[in-house]
Amino acid sequence: MAEFIGIDLGGTKIRGVLTDHSGRVILAREVLTLASEGEEAIFSRIASITRDLAHGAPGDGMRPDVQAIGICAPGPLDSAKGRILVTENLPFIDFPLGPRLKELLGLPVFLDNDGAAAAMGEYLHGAGRSSVVGGRPADPLLYLTISTGIGAGAILGGRLFRGHSSNALEAGHMTLEPGGPTCACGNQGCAEVLASGTAISIAATAAAEAAREGSGPQTALSAWTQPGSREAFLAAAGGDRVAEAIVSEALGYLGICAANLATLFDPEVLIVGGGVTRAGPRVIEAIRAGVRERCPRVVAEGLRILPASLGDDSGALGAAALAALSLEGSSREAHSASRNAG
Amino acid sequence: MAEFIGIDLGGTKIRGVLTDHSGRVILAREVLTLASEGEEAIFSRIASITRDLAHGAPGDGMRPDVQAIGICAPGPLDSAKGRILVTENLPFIDFPLGPRLKELLGLPVFLDNDGAAAAMGEYLHGAGRSSVVGGRPADPLLYLTISTGIGAGAILGGRLFRGHSSNALEAGHMTLEPGGPTCACGNQGCAEVLASGTAISIAATAAAEAAREGSGPQTALSAWTQPGSREAFLAAAGGDRVAEAIVSEALGYLGICAANLATLFDPEVLIVGGGVTRAGPRVIEAIRAGVRERCPRVVAEGLRILPASLGDDSGALGAAALAALSLEGSSREAHSASRNAG
Repeated sequence: MAEFIGIDLGGTKIRGVLTDHSGRVILAREVLTLASEGEEAIFSRIASITRDLAHGAPGDGMRPDVQAIGICAPGPLDSAKGRILVTENLPFIDFPLGPRLKELLGLPVFLDNDGAAAAMGEYLHGAGRSSVVGGRPADPLLYLTISTGIGAGAILGGRLFRGHSSNALEAGHMTLEPGGPTCACGNQGCAEVLASGTAISIAATAAAEAAREGSGPQTALSAWTQPGSREAFLAAAGGDRVAEAIVSEALGYLGICAANLATLFDPEVLIVGGGVTRAGPRVIEAIRAGVRERCPRVVAEGLRILPASLGDDSGALGAAALAALSLEGSSREAHSASRNAG
Repeated sequence: MAEFIGIDLGGTKIRGVLTDHSGRVILAREVLTLASEGEEAIFSRIASITRDLAHGAPGDGMRPDVQAIGICAPGPLDSAKGRILVTENLPFIDFPLGPRLKELLGLPVFLDNDGAAAAMGEYLHGAGRSSVVGGRPADPLLYLTISTGIGAGAILGGRLFRGHSSNALEAGHMTLEPGGPTCACGNQGCAEVLASGTAISIAATAAAEAAREGSGPQTALSAWTQPGSREAFLAAAGGDRVAEAIVSEALGYLGICAANLATLFDPEVLIVGGGVTRAGPRVIEAIRAGVRERCPRVVAEGLRILPASLGDDSGALGAAALAALSLEGSSREAHSASRNAG
């Protein structure tokens, strides 16, 4: 039976799975991304995790049934050419990730946006599948991830919606505050610079520094040199006002981000995932509040907002599924081309 | 040969066309909406224009080849039941427009969002069709209309994208300024309250009043009791600073609105129409600038932004086309159901 490898390249870690054709996980592997070490170091970690999954056990040869590799990464990217064009949280610039991996393992490689892959993962195997009575998968399905960055994906009419340049749903770069802070992409007031894990961490770190230097109010955040979103949520839960202000501002923007997605896509289900959601129910509650307050009522009433159910695996599982679907699609095309030629 | 009626119910006027199956206009009619006269008065004008188109000439009987009526209106609405739920610029509240028209003329009636219908009109017969070399229609295609309100529509994979509750692409209610002015929908900082023709007119009227009362700076706008967006653009073009400030603020928000649409849908073509675009090339230039400055580069570079080419007819022509497609779809379903039953 055919097997597929799915790799999710994130700003913090690289997660990989080996699945059978039905999406059942046979093996899973994870390493830290260590983005500061540069693109070649990250690529060698991707290569090593992929090789491990392809071989199954050290010393074994390549598993004979592995058909293709699906890999997902933050965008913008060129899916057709397998290239990462540029990403804010990783050092890749116009990097031929697909061709390089293909060269290494001799298997077809398919590159997609990480939000898109996670949307497909949750649609086929996660909250999108199980959420709807009668076994019909939710459609339109939107997936919103809040982690190092902010990303999204959409399944429309049973298919991944990629857009013209394969970069649809770059939700992290939707403008939410026209005069807001400048994002790494150059635009002002992007969702990502206002509400991502990185944005929360930057604000918390600045507040901690200010408290230590005496130039800002005291805060529990000053216990950490570089508090992340986890620490900010913890301190806020403990009653720290500075942390609370940071967290509630970010959550307000997340609500607007989700409301705008819902207003434009009018989805049946919006699935929310990513590392920041691990801070607890506040994140999804803020998203529900934003949608309730800001969307047309008929859209908000028809929409179910659910937590992702595949945890860390939605991207990798979706990437494996997209590789399977793409392989099927290309073999069908080749078959029909050869029939037409014959 | 089959004929179809398309009606575009706007905040300012009601436009109707009778078309043949290929979308060629046989007859066109237009009346003012006169929204302040209430829903029954507007409905009787819709009924009268539709009857005129169905009969062709006064005194004639109903044209035998008219198959269906497509009507489009601002949302939110319930397409399946043919009901307008509520709209900011018209007095309808949960109004059964489809059933009422059907009762009157005995023809099937299909109701869609006005932005959606105009998107289909431009896709089949307008800028989306002719814009792309090789005769392939542009896809994904987005249509953005700026008139009394702000609306939009999307053709994805050759089909109108309606969303779960048939209210996708409510672009006028995307939040662009979280702490901005309150929209008629109750939300703060909607695109519509910042950048529609109505928004420009309200700001211009307030400035004119302030100037007349001496509580604000002098402005050429005070020549009109209730200057509209046309007058605001005229005064701005004449060097009036007050008008210029109003117009350029609205255009800035239109640029953000378009940039967010492009960032999320990554379309091949974005078509811009609606009464406010008649103010001249400034409108589309502002939209191009917003996309250039705020979208991921690969999305902006792959995108063509074009003026609508069907003028006042895009909505009505699209509504007629959607009626033809829906009739075809329902007869195909009926046919397949009867085959399956047999």
